[in-house]
Amino acid sequence: MATTSSFVDGKPQASLSLNDRGLNYGHGLFETMRLFSGQLPLWRYHCQRLVMGAERLGIAHDSSRLERYLHQAREAFPTDGMLKLLLTAGVGPRGYRQQIPSASYALQYFPLPAVPRLRALHLQLCDYALPHNAQLAGIKHLNRLDQVLAAGELKEGYEGLLLDVDSNVVEALSSNIFLFDGQNWLTPELQLCGVAGVMRRLLCEEIMPSLGHQVLVKPLALTSLLSASEVFVCNAVRGIQPVCELEGLARWTLEFSGSETEKVITQLTQTYPCFSAQCFVV
Amino acid sequence: MATTSSFVDGKPQASLSLNDRGLNYGHGLFETMRLFSGQLPLWRYHCQRLVMGAERLGIAHDSSRLERYLHQAREAFPTDGMLKLLLTAGVGPRGYRQQIPSASYALQYFPLPAVPRLRALHLQLCDYALPHNAQLAGIKHLNRLDQVLAAGELKEGYEGLLLDVDSNVVEALSSNIFLFDGQNWLTPELQLCGVAGVMRRLLCEEIMPSLGHQVLVKPLALTSLLSASEVFVCNAVRGIQPVCELEGLARWTLEFSGSETEKVITQLTQTYPCFSAQCFVV
Repeated sequence: MATTSSFVDGKPQASLSLNDRGLNYGHGLFETMRLFSGQLPLWRYHCQRLVMGAERLGIAHDSSRLERYLHQAREAFPTDGMLKLLLTAGVGPRGYRQQIPSASYALQYFPLPAVPRLRALHLQLCDYALPHNAQLAGIKHLNRLDQVLAAGELKEGYEGLLLDVDSNVVEALSSNIFLFDGQNWLTPELQLCGVAGVMRRLLCEEIMPSLGHQVLVKPLALTSLLSASEVFVCNAVRGIQPVCELEGLARWTLEFSGSETEKVITQLTQTYPCFSAQCFVV
Repeated sequence: MATTSSFVDGKPQASLSLNDRGLNYGHGLFETMRLFSGQLPLWRYHCQRLVMGAERLGIAHDSSRLERYLHQAREAFPTDGMLKLLLTAGVGPRGYRQQIPSASYALQYFPLPAVPRLRALHLQLCDYALPHNAQLAGIKHLNRLDQVLAAGELKEGYEGLLLDVDSNVVEALSSNIFLFDGQNWLTPELQLCGVAGVMRRLLCEEIMPSLGHQVLVKPLALTSLLSASEVFVCNAVRGIQPVCELEGLARWTLEFSGSETEKVITQLTQTYPCFSAQCFVV
């Protein structure tokens, strides 16, 4: 490795103990963050989700330690790309019961995806249905077999669309989903499953209201998605990506100019220029 | 470390890459095995469960590699104790989709638990309910937040009893459960959640039939447990442990001599003497 691209608990290191609870039980959380000019523009939201997740999973998270490690990583890493944080319940004796409250902090640098990110997205409906679990819903924990199994169904070039066990739309595989019904923006409620994305929150709380929209957050049937006039997915690395197709079920003609999606992207990139590279071009 | 107590892919090593899918997604499996006189008496069953799990999770498992690593570990480790195997989907690029089919094999030695294991077990009913997921049920995968959250409820000295979202009895936290209803032995069906334990299988397929019992495997309501005349839990390390209490709900007078549980333990330890240390003594 030419330069240090990972730290564990403040030390240049690319591995974690076999006794870490993150590995043995998925007892941990992660955040994948856009790194832009040496800054983490959405850190405030990432941090709040992390703290909520640590509380739910009983992880002894120390904010000042994390701030120190983040500072160290940002000094060592390239200024642009992605920073992935793994916060785990740390090393402990064998057994589900947590006996030693510690935590492990791993930070890794990744370059931004090299593949063209400007194209509209093709969605494929996954057969795998997300089970309900109110205690794990919303947080970005390390138990990701649902996503791994769903990803196993995907054809090359497609992103997965995930429904829950009640056949409601939840999210895309690595992003949240928004739809425009002709009047309002809607996005699925995530009380029973799914990850409450940082970009989703930014859009609901800052960007959409500044455009005069109040996003409707509610359970969404697949039929609502199929009849939507515009659909996009979003996450904290790629920003907003318009959807042009749900394979075999729906197509959206992307007349970007004058569309509602264009307005949202324009508003987002004015405040957060790091997401401008993701602007859609027909 | 005085002696080598862990190997990863055949090398003495106590850590796994930050890019391992086992850590990032829980994309892996584990087996905790009794090591006895340098042998793994239940290896056949552990191996079959592992192979089934690897198929379900799309892990490129290589049996001959594993056999080689196991041989190496058994040569290096003490002859008695526990051997924990972690089989993960290996190191790969970021993202849920598996792009490089590899696998990581980690083997660790642990001594047997030092605490007295002869006492009867006190169970505590957990509030946390196991969600249903037919694709993950039965196998011993690394997404164990259900167990971690349930364990967080437990008082010192208690083992957790887990129900599913339909309030049926599933298992104890680290073991399977059997009950005697006065005529038959019963154990919960595990088609929708729970881990299909190796000791459970040994009892159902070998030990109970040799005593003239056909174990009834079916959904079990909590009321069936409460009205049972005898209850025990079992796993592949501790063997069989009689249950004396479900806290606040039921107690079982343990008249061991002449009990059905005694017959099962006697039969088990005749064939597998490694589990005789767990025999119950009033």
